[in-house]
Amino acid sequence: MTTDPVALAAELIRCPSVTPNEGGALALLEARLGAAGFTCIRVDRNGIPNLFARWGAKGARTFGFNGHTDVVPVGDTAAWSHDPFGGEVIDGILWGRGATDMKTGVAAFAAAAIDFVAETPPDGAIVLTITGDEEGAGRDGTRAILDWMQAEGEEMSVCLVGEPTCPERLGDMMKIGRRGSMTFFIEASGVQGHAAYPHRAKNPLHALVTLLARMTAEPLDHGTDHFEPSTVQITTIDCGNPANNVIPAKARATINIRFNDAHTSAILESWGKALARAVTEETGVAFALTTEVSGESFITPPGPFTDLVARAVEAETGVKPELSTSGGTSDARFIKAHCPVLEFGLVGKTMHQVDERVETDQITRLKAVYARILRDWFA
Amino acid sequence: MTTDPVALAAELIRCPSVTPNEGGALALLEARLGAAGFTCIRVDRNGIPNLFARWGAKGARTFGFNGHTDVVPVGDTAAWSHDPFGGEVIDGILWGRGATDMKTGVAAFAAAAIDFVAETPPDGAIVLTITGDEEGAGRDGTRAILDWMQAEGEEMSVCLVGEPTCPERLGDMMKIGRRGSMTFFIEASGVQGHAAYPHRAKNPLHALVTLLARMTAEPLDHGTDHFEPSTVQITTIDCGNPANNVIPAKARATINIRFNDAHTSAILESWGKALARAVTEETGVAFALTTEVSGESFITPPGPFTDLVARAVEAETGVKPELSTSGGTSDARFIKAHCPVLEFGLVGKTMHQVDERVETDQITRLKAVYARILRDWFA
Ligand SMILES: [Zn+2]
Ligand SMILES: [Zn+2]
Repeated sequence: MTTDPVALAAELIRCPSVTPNEGGALALLEARLGAAGFTCIRVDRNGIPNLFARWGAKGARTFGFNGHTDVVPVGDTAAWSHDPFGGEVIDGILWGRGATDMKTGVAAFAAAAIDFVAETPPDGAIVLTITGDEEGAGRDGTRAILDWMQAEGEEMSVCLVGEPTCPERLGDMMKIGRRGSMTFFIEASGVQGHAAYPHRAKNPLHALVTLLARMTAEPLDHGTDHFEPSTVQITTIDCGNPANNVIPAKARATINIRFNDAHTSAILESWGKALARAVTEETGVAFALTTEVSGESFITPPGPFTDLVARAVEAETGVKPELSTSGGTSDARFIKAHCPVLEFGLVGKTMHQVDERVETDQITRLKAVYARILRDWFA
Repeated sequence: MTTDPVALAAELIRCPSVTPNEGGALALLEARLGAAGFTCIRVDRNGIPNLFARWGAKGARTFGFNGHTDVVPVGDTAAWSHDPFGGEVIDGILWGRGATDMKTGVAAFAAAAIDFVAETPPDGAIVLTITGDEEGAGRDGTRAILDWMQAEGEEMSVCLVGEPTCPERLGDMMKIGRRGSMTFFIEASGVQGHAAYPHRAKNPLHALVTLLARMTAEPLDHGTDHFEPSTVQITTIDCGNPANNVIPAKARATINIRFNDAHTSAILESWGKALARAVTEETGVAFALTTEVSGESFITPPGPFTDLVARAVEAETGVKPELSTSGGTSDARFIKAHCPVLEFGLVGKTMHQVDERVETDQITRLKAVYARILRDWFA
């Protein structure tokens, strides 16, 4: 008897686990994995629910999986065609919040792992790290599990993240890395004055425009072997001066940078501060720059592990996956410090939207992909 | 018996004529000028008090004077050393709101004119146009008097405005014109998106920064015969986007331009719109530009009238006045359409401040300057 990933996904959708609520989702997984011989440990931190599950011996060669059971809010419930927490299957479509991001990914891997250890117990271990806070701040989610694992001597040899990665068709993309993300908060301080006498003032807006123009004038790079070009985007500029005849004293701007492996956040911070110093020397306007780093860029370069996953995807879906580093950030950025990490999952088109849904056939095929990856990796 | 300009100035200061209150100031002038043979007519409009006064025949060669009796608020009364509406004279200093801007200027000219027509009645006319709204919106102040004069066939051959014009010493500067002033209100409309996928969005901030950088990159000019260079100042940029990972849809900026006689507001509007069109073509971000024109630049070029005033100033003060077009706007911009206009008055250092004050000796000397100008002009 094999485990039905569609039924498990539907059950998970029925758990109202909007971040940071557990909603019964991790308890359900704990019960199923426990029954299949997995050692399950809740690794909650600061009220955030997390689950660690291992089949096989600690210290063995270990295949790791990472995912999340929390979901974003449903928004306007009345706008949904079906109950967002109903987990209804109608005409081959599973409806509900989490249908693509990513209760299905978790269900597909759990089902594949449960069947795999029952049918062909491997020489090694399988670990699932499932968090209840990927959509939120993420401070006490996957990071908490990894911290706990390090303290306990738990390891993963490799890790697959089950986030939706395919833009159009199941199999068309896997992620081998992600760009880094950082934000500059810039405050320009000049000298207030009358617009008719600019020589007696120092206009912070002119200096800020000069700095922003320089920061965005040229691309940071033209892409690298595995990454698209880095991007620099001004996300806001604010001054709030209502008087047309007054030169204001202060102005602020925020810049978000998505950077590839040609950079580190530290080097980019120096770059920004050097440009600001130059503008200060020219204008006399002072800049205060602070940065917030969401994550550095990372990559698991093409090699045996990427080949294995790509071949399994192509064998089960008939599609050769693109090895991509596009998109935003994911919890893979935390895992990268521990072991090689790849990401493969469903088509993400309806994620975070009203009427999030997926063909049940896709879930079954995703389970088959994960099953083949496990077979090949332990072969 | 001559008229004491210090006593008249002190009496005017005792009238609490904070814009738009008449405060008894125009009534006082009407009484004094009326007693000296001036025909006085109140030309109020929309609740704003204004006074027109003429000695001599309508249609004669006419020397005009313009000034205002309204004053800006006193601010923190407790911070004043003397009652701002007390008009106290202590140790040769007259204290109070309006002591420099410009009840003294009005008193000095009224005193000079009253004595002049009594002692040496001229072959011609003298007109005083005194408004109670120069410090406010100014819509129904000097403009109302000029509109009324046009309708009535009243004219001035030349006009002297009694605003404080001297930066350091009485006599060091007269104004022969003023720069124009206009404001651009710019709204940039792009396409919202995720900061990680800028190619799917159109960032209005990048386009706005490009436009503002181009509008401020080069000076509009390097000055003209009688004017300093025009200035372009960004006075605010606002977007209000709190999300660091979101490219906003809209952003706004305001630019104030002080322009000399090398430009008109219409030509500058075309200049700004052409720059915006170019940035739209490059970026796809749309711009909506609206403008507000406070006044065009104007000048009464050096010639017989400026020579006459400058010589009178030098004769009475010992200082040769600079012929300047610096500073903000004044009601002279309205008068320019009617007749040649110049501005000369006190040192303006304490204007609009707490403890506004002036040496009484300066008031007496200002009256002497105005008296000499009248003598020479009618000679
Ligand atoms: Zn997700
Ligand atoms: Zn004034």
